[in-house]
Amino acid sequence: MEMPIPDPAVVARKARLVERLAAVLPADAVIHDDAETRAYECDALTAYRCPPLVVVLPASTREVSEVLRICHDEGVPVVPRGSGTSLAGGALPTADCVLLGVARMTGVLEVDYPNRFVRVQAGRTNLSVSGAVEEEDFFYAPDPSSQLACAIAGNVAMNSGGAHCLKYGVTTNNLLGVTMVLMDGTVVELGGAHLDAGGLDLLGVVCGSEGQLGVVTEATLRILRKPEGARPVLMGFDSNEVAGACVADIIRAGILPVAIEFMDRPCIRACEAFAGAGYPDCEALLIVEVQGSDAEIDAQLARIMAIARTHDPVELRESESEEESARIWLGRKSAFGAMGQINDYMCLDGTIPVSSLPFVLKRIGEMSAEYGLDVANVFHAGDGNMHPLILFDANRPGDLETCEAFGAEILKLCVEVGGCLTGEHGVGIEKRDLMLHQYAGADLEAQMAVKDVFDPDWLLNPAKVFPLSVSDTRRTGRRTGRQTAA
Amino acid sequence: MEMPIPDPAVVARKARLVERLAAVLPADAVIHDDAETRAYECDALTAYRCPPLVVVLPASTREVSEVLRICHDEGVPVVPRGSGTSLAGGALPTADCVLLGVARMTGVLEVDYPNRFVRVQAGRTNLSVSGAVEEEDFFYAPDPSSQLACAIAGNVAMNSGGAHCLKYGVTTNNLLGVTMVLMDGTVVELGGAHLDAGGLDLLGVVCGSEGQLGVVTEATLRILRKPEGARPVLMGFDSNEVAGACVADIIRAGILPVAIEFMDRPCIRACEAFAGAGYPDCEALLIVEVQGSDAEIDAQLARIMAIARTHDPVELRESESEEESARIWLGRKSAFGAMGQINDYMCLDGTIPVSSLPFVLKRIGEMSAEYGLDVANVFHAGDGNMHPLILFDANRPGDLETCEAFGAEILKLCVEVGGCLTGEHGVGIEKRDLMLHQYAGADLEAQMAVKDVFDPDWLLNPAKVFPLSVSDTRRTGRRTGRQTAA
Repeated sequence: MEMPIPDPAVVARKARLVERLAAVLPADAVIHDDAETRAYECDALTAYRCPPLVVVLPASTREVSEVLRICHDEGVPVVPRGSGTSLAGGALPTADCVLLGVARMTGVLEVDYPNRFVRVQAGRTNLSVSGAVEEEDFFYAPDPSSQLACAIAGNVAMNSGGAHCLKYGVTTNNLLGVTMVLMDGTVVELGGAHLDAGGLDLLGVVCGSEGQLGVVTEATLRILRKPEGARPVLMGFDSNEVAGACVADIIRAGILPVAIEFMDRPCIRACEAFAGAGYPDCEALLIVEVQGSDAEIDAQLARIMAIARTHDPVELRESESEEESARIWLGRKSAFGAMGQINDYMCLDGTIPVSSLPFVLKRIGEMSAEYGLDVANVFHAGDGNMHPLILFDANRPGDLETCEAFGAEILKLCVEVGGCLTGEHGVGIEKRDLMLHQYAGADLEAQMAVKDVFDPDWLLNPAKVFPLSVSDTRRTGRRTGRQTAA
Repeated sequence: MEMPIPDPAVVARKARLVERLAAVLPADAVIHDDAETRAYECDALTAYRCPPLVVVLPASTREVSEVLRICHDEGVPVVPRGSGTSLAGGALPTADCVLLGVARMTGVLEVDYPNRFVRVQAGRTNLSVSGAVEEEDFFYAPDPSSQLACAIAGNVAMNSGGAHCLKYGVTTNNLLGVTMVLMDGTVVELGGAHLDAGGLDLLGVVCGSEGQLGVVTEATLRILRKPEGARPVLMGFDSNEVAGACVADIIRAGILPVAIEFMDRPCIRACEAFAGAGYPDCEALLIVEVQGSDAEIDAQLARIMAIARTHDPVELRESESEEESARIWLGRKSAFGAMGQINDYMCLDGTIPVSSLPFVLKRIGEMSAEYGLDVANVFHAGDGNMHPLILFDANRPGDLETCEAFGAEILKLCVEVGGCLTGEHGVGIEKRDLMLHQYAGADLEAQMAVKDVFDPDWLLNPAKVFPLSVSDTRRTGRRTGRQTAA
C-alpha cells in the first residue's frame, strides 16, 4: 500500500497543536504518533474507522478545560470518548480532530450514603460505580450490557439504559448533576445532589446530547439500596407475536417488573451455546424479573404467571437458586458477544409503543425475507426498546449496504408506529440522516439552535447526531459568518 | 383615587393589538376592559399585583400560535398562565403584556392504557388527569397540594412535585412529550409516548422552564396503575431535630416510602383544628406512607417503625381504616389553607440534602428569634423539599419586608448546605435575585444563552427567573442590537 504524502501545512499545524497541548498535559497524555493514534480509530461500530489527528488523555477537569481552550483557539474539532463502546459511532474520530479520552479520569470523589449519591470522575466504568458502594449494599441502577467496560461519560452522552431500566429508569432518571467543560474552556456546574434546580434544567438537555454541548468530567449519581432478593422467570412461546402480546398484557395490567427481556430463536440458541443458561428450545423467550422480599416476589410472580398462562406458553419456569438466576442473566448479557461468534451483525436500537410489539416483530420478519438477511431479536421489551440484530457477511460484497438499508427501514417503521429511532445507543453517525424521518424542520431547528449557543463553531463531536447535509451547512455557514464579522 | 390619564400612544397601540387578536380568536376570548383584566392581576403570590394590558383565552394550539405570532410581530411581551396558583409569582403580569390563559384548553385528546399514557390539553387540571383514567384504576402520580385547581401547563412550567413524589418522581419524571409554541408562532413537538428521544432532549429543558422558552399547549403524561393499598403512619417526636434525624435514618437505610411528610407544632395545631385528622399534640409530626399489598405494607412498615423507635417517639400509630387515612391526608393537604386562616404567611420552597434536615431546622428556629417572626414548617421531608411558612401581619408596616429578608436568608442557607433555592414552586419573581447565590456567572450565562435562542427578544414571561438587573440588560441589549441590524 502506498503511503499518502503529508501536506506540509497540515504537518506544521499538527506540530503547533501538539506543542501547545504538551505544555498543559503530562508528556504521556498527548499521543500523536500515527501508529499509536490508530488504536483510537473506531468505537464498537467497527465498520467505520478514521484515526484522529491527536489523542489527549487528561486527568482532571482543569486539564480538560486547558485542552478545550487550546482547540477552540486553534479551531480544531474535538471528539470526546468514554470507553469507546458506542454501537452508533458516537466516538468515531475525524481525521482533523483531537480525540479527548477520559480513561484517566476514574476517581471516586465523594460517597454519601445518607443523601444517597456518589460523585465520580466521568471516565469511571459503570460497574465500578456500583463497586464503590457495594460494601454498604447500595448500587447504581442503569446497567448497559457493556457495563464492565463502558464509562459514565458515555452513559451520560447517550442516556444509556439497560435490562433493569424498566423499573429504575435510564441514565437521565439517575443523574443528579454534572461538571461540564464548554468548548471555550468554561467550566459549568449543572444540577447537584438535591431535588430540582432553579431556572432552566440544562442537566436534562445535556444528558443524551452525545458530546454536542460540552465535555462532562464529573457526575453526581443517585445510588439505591440493593433489593432484598430477585427472581427471574423464563417464559417460552411458540411465536414472536405471542410473546410480544404477553409483554403488552403485563404492561397493560399496570404491573412493573424490574425487567422484561425478549429473545427470539436465533438469539436463544446462540446464548444457550455460549452460557448454558438452561433456556428452553422455543421460538421466543421472555425473561421477566421481579425484586423484593420473598413474599413480594411470590405475590408479583403469581399475577405475572397468570397472565402468561393465557398465552399458552411452552415453558414457564421460575429460577430456583441464585446460581440459576446468575446463569440466566449471563446468557442475556452475553447475547451480543454470542451472536458475534457466529455472524457479522448490525445491532439496531429503536423504541416503539409496547402495544405495537406483535405488529413490528411480524413486519421485521417479512422485511427479513424481502432483504434476504436474517434477523435475531434480543431487547428490553418492557419499555419497548428493540435491538434487532441484522446478520450479514462482511466479506460478501454489497452485504453491508443491504444490511444498512434494511436497518434504516426497520428504524423508520419504529418512527411510523409512534416510536423513536434510538432508545439508548444514541444517533451517532449511524442514524444521523434518519433524524429527518423523526423530526419536522422546526423540531430539528430548535435542537440545532441549542447546539449553536453551546458550541457556536460546531467543533464538538462533528458530523454526529444531525443530518450530515444540515450540520455541514450549519458549520460552514457559521464559520464563514464569523470570519466575515472578524 | 385619581385615575391616571392614559397615554394616547399606548391607547392606540392597545387598540391595534386588540383588533389583530380579535381577528384570530372568538370575541369572548379577548379581554381588554380594565375591570375584567383586573381578575388576572396576580397569582397565588398575592403580595404582587399588576393588571395585564390584554387577556387572551385561546382554545387550541393553532389559536395559541396565532396569538404568539401577532405578539411577536408587535413586540408585545406574553405572560402564560395555567390556573394562577403559582406561589412564586410565576404568572404575574406586566402592565404592557398579553396574558395568555389556557383555561379553555382542558380536553383529553388520547387515553392509551396498553402504552400507559394520556395526552391532554395543557389547561386541564392535575386532578382531572387522574379522573380521566380512574375507571380503569390508573392515575397520574405528581400531586401538588393545589391539584384540584392547578393546570398541567403550570405543572410543566414549574416541574411541580407533591407529597407522593418521593417514590413516583416529580413532573419531569412523568412527562413524556409536549406540543409547544415558540414566541414566533412556530409549533414544535418534543418527546412522545416512547422511551428516550433522538438528538437533544429539549423536553428536559422545557420542563421547569417557567414559560421562558415557549407556551406548552398539549402534554403526553405517564399514567400508573393504582397501588393495591396504602397505609400512613403518624410519628410524633418532641423536637424538630429528632424528627429530622428519623427521616435521615429512614432514607439512609435505603427504604423508599411513597411519602414522608413533616409538620411542626404550629402546623399540627392549625391542621388539626381544620381537619380533625387525629394528629397527636407534639413538637414534630411525620406522616410516613407506604403502598402495596397488605403483606408488602406490613413488611415495609415493620422496618420503618423499628427505625422510628430508636428516636423515642411520643406517638407511633398506624392508620386503621381508609377513612382515617383520608383524614390524615386531608389535614396535610389543607395545611396552607389552615395556616392562612390564622395568619398571613409567606411559603418558601427550598431543597436540602436530607442529612442536613436537623441542622437546617435548628438554624431556622434561631433565625426566627433573630427576625422576630414565627415560622411553621410543613414539607416533603423524604426528598429534602422544605416549605417553611414565615408568619407575618400584612397590616403591620415593615412586616412584609422583614419577612422577605428572612425568607431570603433561609433560601441562602439551603444553597449553603448543598441544596437549591427552589424545589417545586419555581423561581418566578420571588427568587429571581437569589439566583446569583445559586449559580456562578458561567452557569447562569449558559441558561440565558438557551433562553436567547428560543426567545431572542426576551418577550416570554418577562422579569421572571433571571436576576432582574441581568435580564433587563439582556433584553434591552438584544432589542437594541436587533434594531441596529435591521
